[in-house]
Amino acid sequence: MDRIEVAGRVFDVRRAVVDDVPGLAALLADDVLGATRESGDLVAYERAFAAIDADPAHLLLAVRDDTGALVATMQLTLLPGLARGGATRLQVEAVRLAARARGGGLGSALFAWAHAWGAERGAVLSQLTTDRSRVDAHRFYERLGYAPSHTGFKRPL
Amino acid sequence: MDRIEVAGRVFDVRRAVVDDVPGLAALLADDVLGATRESGDLVAYERAFAAIDADPAHLLLAVRDDTGALVATMQLTLLPGLARGGATRLQVEAVRLAARARGGGLGSALFAWAHAWGAERGAVLSQLTTDRSRVDAHRFYERLGYAPSHTGFKRPL
Repeated sequence: MDRIEVAGRVFDVRRAVVDDVPGLAALLADDVLGATRESGDLVAYERAFAAIDADPAHLLLAVRDDTGALVATMQLTLLPGLARGGATRLQVEAVRLAARARGGGLGSALFAWAHAWGAERGAVLSQLTTDRSRVDAHRFYERLGYAPSHTGFKRPL
Repeated sequence: MDRIEVAGRVFDVRRAVVDDVPGLAALLADDVLGATRESGDLVAYERAFAAIDADPAHLLLAVRDDTGALVATMQLTLLPGLARGGATRLQVEAVRLAARARGGGLGSALFAWAHAWGAERGAVLSQLTTDRSRVDAHRFYERLGYAPSHTGFKRPL
């Protein structure tokens, strides 16, 4: 789908396909919070993938390095709404970079790509939430121009 | 679509139609933050309404009291995702109650309705963000069982 170059290294940014699901699930689990809440049930991930893939409002990304290894993912959703003058939002979920891919500028480059993808499709605002305990992530998002203006509430159903 | 009874008063909860758009835009503007960021351009709201209405993942609610007056709105979205074992989320946006409809239990009843709508469609988690300055809203969501576990970041595109 697209290639981004970061400090001389080339990464391949693509819409995920069903064959990426095991690798994406492993990437989500390889995380201090993800380790406790991801499961080994691939069928549930494949079912979720089918729902994401069926609606063009979503773009699930699989990012590979020049060796073909899966190093990052994020889910983008175009969220139309009446508020803020009928603003379309870019909702960003499930951002993960493999530990060895962090700190080298890939995260920033990927967000620049995501912002451009959203803006080209009419989004005027990008939004995401991060767990309060992820202080490194908070600094990262503030450097990217995000304001921590809101409290993110979650409730099990 | 549905009726909810709150302390002896009956409210009509329906999927919004295009004729509701001017009233919904007025409700969004009648708010301490909305007053500064809503616009008078109805065409933009109607365009946004068409995008919401075209995707069955969204439900924009128009809630009327027993006199037929529009007293509340919220936008619900079913958001599939790989994270948390392939969990579908209920994303709640643009919640507004008319000033005169607050404090009487309508908000709680409407969220109970929304949670049931999401759970029936497979959502296992409800999520929303509120501006940090809305301290009354924060108390309201904590009473409803929401945890303020996340920071909500926004960035213009």
